[in-house]
Amino acid sequence: MTPTRTLQLHSTVHEDSTVTLALVEADLPETGPDDVVVRMEAAPINPSDLGVMFARAEMSTLVRDTSVAAHAVRATLTPEAMQAAAGRIGLTIPAGNEGGGVVVAAGTSDAAQALLGKVVGIRGGAMYAQYRCIAAQHCLVLPDGTAPVDAASCFVNPLTALGMVETMRMEGHTGLVHTAAASNLGQMLQKICTADGIPLVNIVRTPEQAALLRRIGATHVCDTSQPAFTDDLTNALAETGATLGFDATGGGDLTSHILAAMEAAANRSATAFSRYGSTVYKQVYVYGSLEAGPTVLHRTYGMSWGVGGWLLTHFLRRIPPETAARLKHRVAAEITTTFASHYTKVVSLAGALEPEAIAQYSKRATGQKYLIDPTRA
Amino acid sequence: MTPTRTLQLHSTVHEDSTVTLALVEADLPETGPDDVVVRMEAAPINPSDLGVMFARAEMSTLVRDTSVAAHAVRATLTPEAMQAAAGRIGLTIPAGNEGGGVVVAAGTSDAAQALLGKVVGIRGGAMYAQYRCIAAQHCLVLPDGTAPVDAASCFVNPLTALGMVETMRMEGHTGLVHTAAASNLGQMLQKICTADGIPLVNIVRTPEQAALLRRIGATHVCDTSQPAFTDDLTNALAETGATLGFDATGGGDLTSHILAAMEAAANRSATAFSRYGSTVYKQVYVYGSLEAGPTVLHRTYGMSWGVGGWLLTHFLRRIPPETAARLKHRVAAEITTTFASHYTKVVSLAGALEPEAIAQYSKRATGQKYLIDPTRA
Repeated sequence: MTPTRTLQLHSTVHEDSTVTLALVEADLPETGPDDVVVRMEAAPINPSDLGVMFARAEMSTLVRDTSVAAHAVRATLTPEAMQAAAGRIGLTIPAGNEGGGVVVAAGTSDAAQALLGKVVGIRGGAMYAQYRCIAAQHCLVLPDGTAPVDAASCFVNPLTALGMVETMRMEGHTGLVHTAAASNLGQMLQKICTADGIPLVNIVRTPEQAALLRRIGATHVCDTSQPAFTDDLTNALAETGATLGFDATGGGDLTSHILAAMEAAANRSATAFSRYGSTVYKQVYVYGSLEAGPTVLHRTYGMSWGVGGWLLTHFLRRIPPETAARLKHRVAAEITTTFASHYTKVVSLAGALEPEAIAQYSKRATGQKYLIDPTRA
Repeated sequence: MTPTRTLQLHSTVHEDSTVTLALVEADLPETGPDDVVVRMEAAPINPSDLGVMFARAEMSTLVRDTSVAAHAVRATLTPEAMQAAAGRIGLTIPAGNEGGGVVVAAGTSDAAQALLGKVVGIRGGAMYAQYRCIAAQHCLVLPDGTAPVDAASCFVNPLTALGMVETMRMEGHTGLVHTAAASNLGQMLQKICTADGIPLVNIVRTPEQAALLRRIGATHVCDTSQPAFTDDLTNALAETGATLGFDATGGGDLTSHILAAMEAAANRSATAFSRYGSTVYKQVYVYGSLEAGPTVLHRTYGMSWGVGGWLLTHFLRRIPPETAARLKHRVAAEITTTFASHYTKVVSLAGALEPEAIAQYSKRATGQKYLIDPTRA
């Protein structure tokens, strides 16, 4: 029988400058001919989910609030966070960008029927739920025998990592720099670059993170906690010729530091002084905001540089459908190898609303990753 | 008779963290068959020249130094400025990016001979000199009857203004934003945009600058000194749909402010809340450094944005030769109208080394513009 109701995690920003995240029951949309219903069994809490869930609230103010629902929390937003959230005040936003599960009901079309019983990865919001109705064509069907937990993180990290490599090729670069490089995403990127023979310079914050990356085959790892960091980075950039960076931190001056090191590396092979800097084009995309606060650009790297935002959904809109299909095919084929994710803790939907759990997973610390299993009581 | 020697202004950064600018006599290179010798009669002091002349020295430390030459000055560099100047320590760099004059000698080729007696605009360094030897093909030949003073500023400002419009077209934007908009360059840009029907949003710092631009036909002028600046800017951006900015200031958060206003303008027509911001691509190029200090990006404008360096010489390398020829032809045809420059003071080569003059022209103040006339004693 097709499910018609589901428990979901809903986030709402209120006029009184608070945000609530609550476990509520909601209707599932009617299953159209081309739709399927997925019983969600695993959905990760990614950094990109936290913004939807908590709207950049001050997490120290978070408390339980049973006036909203039996399982609910509330936190307070700063005026800046409130301004950024202006467009969503009063809206109920179901959280969860991606997840994995089993198709338990299907519309009448052949495409939908063909998915019955399959393990699929899906994305698009409202994934922190018992059930999710979605168009069959948007399901990433995994090889038979795949565990639903392995389908949890098919999109955000794998396609972001592949998207970085595609962007590099599309924009004429031949090597990459990546920050927060010991993350799940960073490890995937290292594995892709190893397999594809792409030079990758990893930037991490601790010797433990550096060791982790070296264990999976990284050759260039630069640790910001080491005194020789700038020299190490410049040497690695000179060796690899990497001129495209992806920065997950966003705030602070790491982006600027990378551009300066790229320029220093480029000038090592310069034959004459150029007062406007090298003509080598250097680009860093900011794709995350692990560090709040502004991006500070010191502009000490000539005039041939660019910084910009990079977002997976914009990237997917920009590439031809056949490229997107190729990337997704690779994810499905390598879901338990290149694109395997690791979670430190599994919680239920209600468990994700426990203040102690929130205090942990909202830290965005490398190696700390929570998974929601909506089948758990 | 072909001149063989010339007086020139030479800049040198020394190991002791000082920079000297001196009037010295130097050999002219031998005139090749395709070369001409231009008697320089007018060369502007542009902001882009100041970096070559003084290497970002602390101008308060500037003193005469007759140990170098009869006419010479010396100033001290901060450690940061010294680091930025690392590539030019001990080098003698002849200053002056562009200028105008009369062809007084020519090589044996027809192309060179054809220029004898012509008034030309030229660029490429070493323009603060009595004579400059240059390839005939690099001369912008002006219509007969043009005064050499009108040939002084054929390149930097006119081609930068035209380059902004070309960049806009090449990158798919339909309107422009410009800061420090009351400058000579800004006035040219307004005239081009008026003639070509391109929406232009001008950003200025004083009511006087706003009035100046309105007098030459500007319709959108936003004054940062006014309390309604942010609203004015957002309204102008919503009306014009301008999504490409050129920022001459560089330091501070004006670039970020423009991106935020573009985003706010884009969101006015949005129909649904998008948690990653609008999909409208917003770009600001930093083409100058009127404000020292870092560029501060607040990243409150979603993920569809870019910031980068923009340099005329890189732009000219990027466009096809026929486009460059078209732009130069327009400059020559409109040199006394669209591309007319105004100077507040004319000095000799020695006069450009007077500390009182330097104190004035190194301020980079709008409406303050010096011209060097090397024919003056």
